[in-house]
Amino acid sequence: MAGLVARYGDRMRIEGVDHPVSIEEGSTPLIPAPRLADALGTPTTRLFLKFEGLNPTGSFKDRGMTAAITDARAKGARTVICASTGNTAASAAAYAARAGMECLVLVPEGKVALGKLAGAIAYGAKVVTIRGSFDDGLRMVREAPDHAPVTVVNSVNPARMEGQKTGAFEICEELGDAPNWHCLPVGNAGNISAYWQGYCEQHAEGFVTKKPRILGVQAEGAAPIVRGHVVENPETVATAIRIGNPARWKQAEAARDESGGFITMVPDEEILHWYRAVARLEGVFCEPSCAAPLAGIARGVREGWLDLRDQSAVVVLTGHGMKDPDQAVAMPFEQHTIDATMDALLKVMR
Amino acid sequence: MAGLVARYGDRMRIEGVDHPVSIEEGSTPLIPAPRLADALGTPTTRLFLKFEGLNPTGSFKDRGMTAAITDARAKGARTVICASTGNTAASAAAYAARAGMECLVLVPEGKVALGKLAGAIAYGAKVVTIRGSFDDGLRMVREAPDHAPVTVVNSVNPARMEGQKTGAFEICEELGDAPNWHCLPVGNAGNISAYWQGYCEQHAEGFVTKKPRILGVQAEGAAPIVRGHVVENPETVATAIRIGNPARWKQAEAARDESGGFITMVPDEEILHWYRAVARLEGVFCEPSCAAPLAGIARGVREGWLDLRDQSAVVVLTGHGMKDPDQAVAMPFEQHTIDATMDALLKVMR
Repeated sequence: MAGLVARYGDRMRIEGVDHPVSIEEGSTPLIPAPRLADALGTPTTRLFLKFEGLNPTGSFKDRGMTAAITDARAKGARTVICASTGNTAASAAAYAARAGMECLVLVPEGKVALGKLAGAIAYGAKVVTIRGSFDDGLRMVREAPDHAPVTVVNSVNPARMEGQKTGAFEICEELGDAPNWHCLPVGNAGNISAYWQGYCEQHAEGFVTKKPRILGVQAEGAAPIVRGHVVENPETVATAIRIGNPARWKQAEAARDESGGFITMVPDEEILHWYRAVARLEGVFCEPSCAAPLAGIARGVREGWLDLRDQSAVVVLTGHGMKDPDQAVAMPFEQHTIDATMDALLKVMR
Repeated sequence: MAGLVARYGDRMRIEGVDHPVSIEEGSTPLIPAPRLADALGTPTTRLFLKFEGLNPTGSFKDRGMTAAITDARAKGARTVICASTGNTAASAAAYAARAGMECLVLVPEGKVALGKLAGAIAYGAKVVTIRGSFDDGLRMVREAPDHAPVTVVNSVNPARMEGQKTGAFEICEELGDAPNWHCLPVGNAGNISAYWQGYCEQHAEGFVTKKPRILGVQAEGAAPIVRGHVVENPETVATAIRIGNPARWKQAEAARDESGGFITMVPDEEILHWYRAVARLEGVFCEPSCAAPLAGIARGVREGWLDLRDQSAVVVLTGHGMKDPDQAVAMPFEQHTIDATMDALLKVMR
């Protein structure tokens, strides 16, 4: 299967579509999840998991990065830069490596466990530790192009959105139409904006008969859009959406309002509950943040403001659980220590 | 894209093909790797990486597991069991979860870091720690079906091979024929046997004009087939192929001899060198064991016994690097600590 720029480049406003930088991202599975729908209290929903953890670097960021790095290379860039400690850094480093470009990743000193940077390090990024805050790093990244020939690949780069919207294209192609509902976690709000843009383009092109309603879900400790104000010190176990002042706040609200959808929030306990449930019921291991929309569905169904009966609903699982194995091991699980005898084993098996 | 039993079930000798247990495994990318071919000293080779790390649980094991669990469920199994600390355990746990079956994973006490079991734990496996060795665990697993209604999903289960051979089917379909060379790591020798079987079946069905020559590569510290005798205490950084007495030893030799290929061995330093190189040159982050065939190619080309000029060659990357982030972080990498000023940043960028 070809990569995203090869498949959809004619619908991306970027340069270099004839020479994509690709690691054959996209074409991720859309996994039916009937047992999960049951558990969520809405058994007649045709529920699907768009498992973005099966992109090359393990998250949805690869969709935007193939576009951003293709565009950057076409424009002559030799170096890319980003401030990130997680999925963005790994993705930027991988695509830069593939293109033979240098990648700098800025991180605040003392704030980031090395394991979180394993991906970026493996792909050969240059790790620049700043004696300052994460915001200092982001400021420096934004200013850098004024001083040196370097391309910023944080989500301020508009090419990222051009790639990210392809998630909506794939869902529509696989289902034969748009789903009734599209559910996803909301952090910096780039993904909700990109998906909405993708669905609108599918509709404008006449490829689908409808647009989905959007359900965006934030963590209670990092829910600026729901609360209506910036959150100074956002806190949640769902680190990928631990953001207090989303870059695409207005666009997220537009996606909600234009689609007739909701943006809601859920507590960490419920996120962790559904993080476990999706792995244990459907065999799909995702990052904790991906479970936020599941918790949102459960809450909406329980409280009566969300009716998914007989509807199709897609939940985007943005990253693979393998990226944060410590979280999985920190949850309670069943363990037995036994003598190496068949009797002891049979007892455990009951 | 449908899962493997839906696509190839009519070519699998298993039960239950009409009701597959699938997490939409397979359809993994075949990534062109021209920069890597250059670095390997054979720039005219049409080199491809079959990136099996993008299966749902992050390794090629999912190919065999969808077949094994489909077959087990059709035969009425409610519980599956395996002795494994790594990829097999995670895969078994995921597919058992998806099927609503119980999964027991046997591990020797004190030998296994919890992080290695993160996948299995996340998918809800019951972890049974044995006061004994890994061999005790394997013995108990093999005996268990005589005493209780439980299905063994270690590679002794023949359904595993039926699923695993589909990797060869996909490669042939995507290339339009078999490649000239097929290169892969050899541990327990299940994968080399399954791929050879797959290519032979493709050829027998008339879907391809040729069969590839097979290059299997072991680690020097765990190279029983190359050395011609069992290795009592196998040792290598490539833990996924740290096996001293392969279950499918004879079949691996047959694949080598029938195909006119080689089984060779490489030292850990060279494995680690190519483990880094594939991520840094092509943006593909794999488990260390996956780099063994790359080291084998480099060695064969350098020493003159392997001629890949103008040939097509596929290298199977069996698992994703995210599964073992500690290994990535343990390698040397470029890091700078600077003040939060543009001058300091520009100096790092040169």
